[in-house]
Amino acid sequence: MKYFEDYQVGQESVLPFHTVTADEIIAFAKQYDPQYFHLDPEAAKQSIFGGLVASGWHVCAILMRMLVEELKHDQAAGLGSPGVDSCRWLKPVRPGDRLSGRGVVLDAWRSKSKPYGFVRRRFDLSNQHGEIVASLVGLGMFAVRPDAGAS
Amino acid sequence: MKYFEDYQVGQESVLPFHTVTADEIIAFAKQYDPQYFHLDPEAAKQSIFGGLVASGWHVCAILMRMLVEELKHDQAAGLGSPGVDSCRWLKPVRPGDRLSGRGVVLDAWRSKSKPYGFVRRRFDLSNQHGEIVASLVGLGMFAVRPDAGAS
Repeated sequence: MKYFEDYQVGQESVLPFHTVTADEIIAFAKQYDPQYFHLDPEAAKQSIFGGLVASGWHVCAILMRMLVEELKHDQAAGLGSPGVDSCRWLKPVRPGDRLSGRGVVLDAWRSKSKPYGFVRRRFDLSNQHGEIVASLVGLGMFAVRPDAGAS
Repeated sequence: MKYFEDYQVGQESVLPFHTVTADEIIAFAKQYDPQYFHLDPEAAKQSIFGGLVASGWHVCAILMRMLVEELKHDQAAGLGSPGVDSCRWLKPVRPGDRLSGRGVVLDAWRSKSKPYGFVRRRFDLSNQHGEIVASLVGLGMFAVRPDAGAS
């Protein structure tokens, strides 16, 4: 298993690929972000995006799924997250875009009172053209190694 | 219609209510955040949350839907968002929680070259006990009044 102590500043990770479809862009938008440039490919041509684009929250949700796959692959002792320090949606995400993700550990510190620690990471999502489409700095909580719990 | 010029610093808004169900917590988690404390009510009892809780990204998506309802009600000339300055998930969101949202304009400035402006707002989501469950500072882009577009 991967515990808090296994996250070191500067450590990089590569997240799994995901190819975005028009269907999933529209399905997410119908439920959570029903603006026309996320919903209607024809009408979206008239928007500042020039075509259908994924909701920024959908992009974050896709990143989260990549992250959970990484957590499971690593058998990481993840305990959730207190939040996000910043998020920028830098380029539109369009149907057919193949997204890849990279993460880097910026900072890590132990809780003063609880048997877990906080890890701050930056994640960049890129498309198939090598353009960064979203950049996010987020916090994660991870259990400390059981034998370190009392220290 | 509501244009960039209609967003004034200090202006407050009240967003529509939303009651969260276990079904939607699990459906979101299956697709985007399949961690056991978002998926499995029984297993979640053993987590640090003590029961099933919504993904933080699901909470953001619910806030976004509230915001789109506000945009439509106001006939706001919304053009999307470049990102989020911070987001904190402060309390667990559980099945049956009735969420309400409030927004306040923190800052607003015009693009130097384009006919739109940026509005920075803080949004607080509260539950039925009056506890703030999430607090987010986000940016929005809004078209300027057509007659101001050339100024």
